[in-house]
Amino acid sequence: MTSLLDPDTPFAVVDRNRLDRNVDRLQGHLRRLGVPLRLHVKTAKSLDVAARVHRHGPEPITVSTLAEAEYFADAGYTDVLYAVGIAPAKLDRVVALHRRGVDLAVLLDSVAQAEAVATASRAGGIRIPALIEIDCDGHRAGIAPDDPQVLTIGRLLHDGGAELRGVLDHAGESYFSTTGVDRQRDAEDERATVVQAARILRDVGMACPVVSVGSTPTAHAVAVLDGVTEVRAGNFVFLDLVMAGIGVCELDDLALSVVVTVIGHRPDRGWILTDGGWMAMSRDRGTAAQPVDQGYGVVLDLSGRVLGDLIMTGASQEHGVLSMRPGSGTPLPELPIGTRLRVLPNHACATASQYQQYAVIAGDAAVGDRPAAIETTWPRINGW
Amino acid sequence: MTSLLDPDTPFAVVDRNRLDRNVDRLQGHLRRLGVPLRLHVKTAKSLDVAARVHRHGPEPITVSTLAEAEYFADAGYTDVLYAVGIAPAKLDRVVALHRRGVDLAVLLDSVAQAEAVATASRAGGIRIPALIEIDCDGHRAGIAPDDPQVLTIGRLLHDGGAELRGVLDHAGESYFSTTGVDRQRDAEDERATVVQAARILRDVGMACPVVSVGSTPTAHAVAVLDGVTEVRAGNFVFLDLVMAGIGVCELDDLALSVVVTVIGHRPDRGWILTDGGWMAMSRDRGTAAQPVDQGYGVVLDLSGRVLGDLIMTGASQEHGVLSMRPGSGTPLPELPIGTRLRVLPNHACATASQYQQYAVIAGDAAVGDRPAAIETTWPRINGW
Repeated sequence: MTSLLDPDTPFAVVDRNRLDRNVDRLQGHLRRLGVPLRLHVKTAKSLDVAARVHRHGPEPITVSTLAEAEYFADAGYTDVLYAVGIAPAKLDRVVALHRRGVDLAVLLDSVAQAEAVATASRAGGIRIPALIEIDCDGHRAGIAPDDPQVLTIGRLLHDGGAELRGVLDHAGESYFSTTGVDRQRDAEDERATVVQAARILRDVGMACPVVSVGSTPTAHAVAVLDGVTEVRAGNFVFLDLVMAGIGVCELDDLALSVVVTVIGHRPDRGWILTDGGWMAMSRDRGTAAQPVDQGYGVVLDLSGRVLGDLIMTGASQEHGVLSMRPGSGTPLPELPIGTRLRVLPNHACATASQYQQYAVIAGDAAVGDRPAAIETTWPRINGW
Repeated sequence: MTSLLDPDTPFAVVDRNRLDRNVDRLQGHLRRLGVPLRLHVKTAKSLDVAARVHRHGPEPITVSTLAEAEYFADAGYTDVLYAVGIAPAKLDRVVALHRRGVDLAVLLDSVAQAEAVATASRAGGIRIPALIEIDCDGHRAGIAPDDPQVLTIGRLLHDGGAELRGVLDHAGESYFSTTGVDRQRDAEDERATVVQAARILRDVGMACPVVSVGSTPTAHAVAVLDGVTEVRAGNFVFLDLVMAGIGVCELDDLALSVVVTVIGHRPDRGWILTDGGWMAMSRDRGTAAQPVDQGYGVVLDLSGRVLGDLIMTGASQEHGVLSMRPGSGTPLPELPIGTRLRVLPNHACATASQYQQYAVIAGDAAVGDRPAAIETTWPRINGW
């Protein structure tokens, strides 16, 4: 049977047990709060990962690219939210998805976009559903809930032949909140802000059926979802060092890792070199600004044990540099040429995007004298 | 005709005129020095880009992955150097390439690797050619030229049934040398170090036919190549902001850019939002440590003009944040929703790897009221 010793390195591994546990955790939490999840597929971009969330067939999803929308549509997903502000030139593909029977909602936060969506709706004979993006924390896009543009955009959509589907926000700043109390406050800001926008629209008689919130940190922390109709989250399936660094999870929840091979030693510099560089891990250094900087990743042996203070401190395109965490008092472990290791990534979305498939293991258990068996391979997509 | 207005954004663009100029510049320089180029294909990973260098058919190449070796072998490339220290488990694919008629040389810097290469040579009935990696600047892998292991490894290869093909080094620290004088010194260190190793091997009667140096900064700066048989360089085809930042080139030499679309405005924060985030640019922040931090990239209009102090200062997965360079006294330009822009990347190797193809233009010239025409699309590969 194929094991973690077999594919050429570097390759990406998903631990299905951890994935399932991560899915159960968030789904259980949201079930108790009585609000459905709209899975964001941007992290894994995999039908098989989505199927671990949607055990009984396709459910509503969020996408970050139209390529994801088209890929999931091919597999029978029909309720899709494209959660990046719409570029007018992309409306042709939006209309084409509707013609295929996909209820694809777009996102916008400007009059110009609303006019483009209304024009495309009339031209295509389809009431393209659109959500207005609301800003709750100054993190990225969106307008304030009480900005008069909310009503202007709502009217333009409705009167122009499109559909005002609802409102959405995203507490992006919660990725920097290092306590559960802070993240619960972020979640409440996220909820209250978008609910306020919905109320403003409804107060003037506009239907606003969808009230959408979400981020992996707030989805886990949220205690009250009054007025919210759906929660978006994506990273929670894999989790990563950034999430562990702010306390959303523990290291042994991380379901994605990269298998690399030792290819050299520089005892003079305190380095072990591997064949997993930034191409294998991505250039993401998301823990650099956290209390504990994990470099490019935390190093495990093949059975999933953390190798003390050994982290990946440097990367060139196809070389990884492992060394002891700054300040560590322990010596570099002896890891001969050819030793395989696993590296937990800073940012699962970025690392996963460096691959076209995942090798899947079900836990870390060795099989006889072999490490965990690879039970299957799950493809993923990239691109736009 | 298709133009830069047509494909959905984000997409990667190669300016063939700039590419050709970059190729002519380095090839002219090396021709004057009388040493052949062994193109490193890791930057573009494209047969079409390689064909701009190799106008009369395949020539020697360097690869960073066996996937590149196999891809170029499929297109008739038979002289290939895999310039990452060999992981023993990969020797099966090395042998398979030899059986297909590819003269694939591997790289190593340890007794353990030399023994593995010798064992695979005997098992496969092929004298696998290997280069010993020499360290000239403590940047990454390799051993000192006068390390006794150089001779031990040389003997192990030769006596064990493999082939000692030669020695190689790479002045990785030259990426941080900000003057031509410094880079010329780096180049001389790179040359002298590897030539010393070759002499030590030859002094005891071992043939050492290949003496290989290279990095894009040193390849451009080098003035003397006595004793060197080949120069490796890859980034020079595209160049990038990191190369411009240390003075290897000017901004208008950069042949790779990413086309993005304006999708929002945050005048309250001084931001213009685009649909090109870190997935489109990579997470590479290579200019962060340079005298001029270019954020995630320098912004151009579609005709290639730099838009003053506007740079890409932030990125999430599919959102780019454009704002004025810190300290700029000029206001944010007015760029309506739907405006297309080009972004010059920090690191061409990293940005290009986010794509599966390049749209190719021949210069920035508009065609009537349309921007530059896309004359063709060039595929590239990723993965291992």
